[in-house]
Amino acid sequence: MSNQKFISTTPTFDDIQAVAPALKDFTKDDLLGKVWGKKELSPRDRSIITLAAVITRNLQAELPPMLVLAIENGVKFAEISEIITHLAFYAGWGNAMSAILPTKKIFEKYQVDTALLPKSDDELLPIDENAEAQRAEFVEEAFGCTSAGVVKNTTDYLFRNLWLRSALAPRDRSLVTVAALIAAGQVAQIPYHLNRALDNGLTQVQASEVLTHLAFYAGWPNIFSSLTVFKEVFANRKK
Amino acid sequence: MSNQKFISTTPTFDDIQAVAPALKDFTKDDLLGKVWGKKELSPRDRSIITLAAVITRNLQAELPPMLVLAIENGVKFAEISEIITHLAFYAGWGNAMSAILPTKKIFEKYQVDTALLPKSDDELLPIDENAEAQRAEFVEEAFGCTSAGVVKNTTDYLFRNLWLRSALAPRDRSLVTVAALIAAGQVAQIPYHLNRALDNGLTQVQASEVLTHLAFYAGWPNIFSSLTVFKEVFANRKK
Amino acid sequence: MSNQKFISTTPTFDDIQAVAPALKDFTKDDLLGKVWGKKELSPRDRSIITLAAVITRNLQAELPPMLVLAIENGVKFAEISEIITHLAFYAGWGNAMSAILPTKKIFEKYQVDTALLPKSDDELLPIDENAEAQRAEFVEEAFGCTSAGVVKNTTDYLFRNLWLRSALAPRDRSLVTVAALIAAGQVAQIPYHLNRALDNGLTQVQASEVLTHLAFYAGWPNIFSSLTVFKEVFANRKK
Repeated sequence: MSNQKFISTTPTFDDIQAVAPALKDFTKDDLLGKVWGKKELSPRDRSIITLAAVITRNLQAELPPMLVLAIENGVKFAEISEIITHLAFYAGWGNAMSAILPTKKIFEKYQVDTALLPKSDDELLPIDENAEAQRAEFVEEAFGCTSAGVVKNTTDYLFRNLWLRSALAPRDRSLVTVAALIAAGQVAQIPYHLNRALDNGLTQVQASEVLTHLAFYAGWPNIFSSLTVFKEVFANRKK
Repeated sequence: MSNQKFISTTPTFDDIQAVAPALKDFTKDDLLGKVWGKKELSPRDRSIITLAAVITRNLQAELPPMLVLAIENGVKFAEISEIITHLAFYAGWGNAMSAILPTKKIFEKYQVDTALLPKSDDELLPIDENAEAQRAEFVEEAFGCTSAGVVKNTTDYLFRNLWLRSALAPRDRSLVTVAALIAAGQVAQIPYHLNRALDNGLTQVQASEVLTHLAFYAGWPNIFSSLTVFKEVFANRKK
Repeated sequence: MSNQKFISTTPTFDDIQAVAPALKDFTKDDLLGKVWGKKELSPRDRSIITLAAVITRNLQAELPPMLVLAIENGVKFAEISEIITHLAFYAGWGNAMSAILPTKKIFEKYQVDTALLPKSDDELLPIDENAEAQRAEFVEEAFGCTSAGVVKNTTDYLFRNLWLRSALAPRDRSLVTVAALIAAGQVAQIPYHLNRALDNGLTQVQASEVLTHLAFYAGWPNIFSSLTVFKEVFANRKK
């Protein structure tokens, strides 16, 4: 939703009013007017998780206004670019591909210098070899005989490349990943990545607010299914 | 599918014939010709759950013909408006937003008086304070420490507002919710809402037929995953 | 992604470069350049499962290029037609409907003779009456009292009709089904259909590679959730 007309699939407030006046008020007064301003999570963080949810759920109508809001909230062009690259792996290639043309249109409007966008040889952050060896051993032991190809690509593409790319801070990359898992209803994969997010500097208050915020963008049922695993992860870290 | 051309993404029977002649016959002779006419569920109820499924799954190609069919089957304009508002919370904001423009086009065609559509200050039905206190206490106990924000918004937005809005009867609101959960594969959230639907007047025969009908619109796998929880809910109510 | 411009939602390599240069390289050098060429699964099989994943996830941006790639990789027009019909039941009617117009456009470009596409009275393969009786009895016992309609339609539409249609070999139909289940996160329905696929001639090496390939098209989280059930199915067949 937006005051501007971006593309033919994005409704304006007047469009919403013409179909569901109550929804227009909920959108303007409550979601944009209150939820986005709550101090438990910065507007920039809210934009990162909303973008991740919108791309993961392939909601074309919400993508253009959420891209503009992300830029206004301080998400850099290079970070938007890298969020899309990250989601190719965590939401699926076609979801990332579906985000390309709407993002290109916004980038052109903002006259983004594409030479400054993160490349495939982006500088890599130093790796924690012990933690990575532990992760790799666990996955190899669990699934090495089920699909050696998945295990190898998980190491090579994800944990020795994508996660180390400097274009997105590890905490933000974790935010994107956790938001994508919540938005896709991938409850079983949340514990590992929520723990990783908390290790990467996300606080429990912020993680809780991710759920409060994404209830609107991923739907209440996804949030209630996620609450159970968030509760377990929080409890296990207290011990 | 439809005899008319609504928008460029909705195929006509001739279009289906040109790609998959068998699917055209399945659509015309079986789905529209038989399933929609089965007496276990009224055409109006079938339209309500199909609309909910189509919006929850963001299937733009099916939305215009299903809106027209809903109107023909007696779903009122105000009810369509409220179904979209309800699904903003239960399917996700972007899904509701994606339904706005196609619905606006249909509403314009039918010259709907937008002044009569349900507003944010729609009259509220009386609340069952005991039942609501029980629900709120259960959720607070389970998740109050995990995400106070979700717990508060669930009470304030959903159970002390949305569910009480008079624009949609509680039974129909339950139908929309259960259909959305089935269509999104949200099996874990079905027991609470199926029980609520049965409390709100849906019969078990009708609930069974929701599965038979939605097998076509949500895909067989979602229905087989839902069957297990439907079976448990039915068994527990017999005791 | 593609070198050609099919429809307005499909990005070219230049489009990807303008938004996410790293993703362009991952797409061209790694996904298309390496993954698609791995010998564990033929290009034709990769096209079948990718098409199934793209239609199941309703990714309009990927559909036209994946249809063209399927044709180039030897998937016949009649098989593409039948894959769409099959997915109407296994991914949902609206997903199949959303695939009609993009496929029609490609079929017209290739001047497909629509008279040769599989019809509703397509020749049926012989049925294994013992196996079908066992399946029907199991489902009747489990869910006959929960939804007689679903149980009846599963027998009549799926196992005594769709699965026997000769337009798609049982092994390929199983590939489509397993890919659809993985792509939709329908983990609970995988064991039955993975066993059926292996019974229909898919090897375990090929099944493992389905996961490696679909990690890119369905997203890593869906694959990690599927790995657990693949592991169990493989282990149980060894006994």
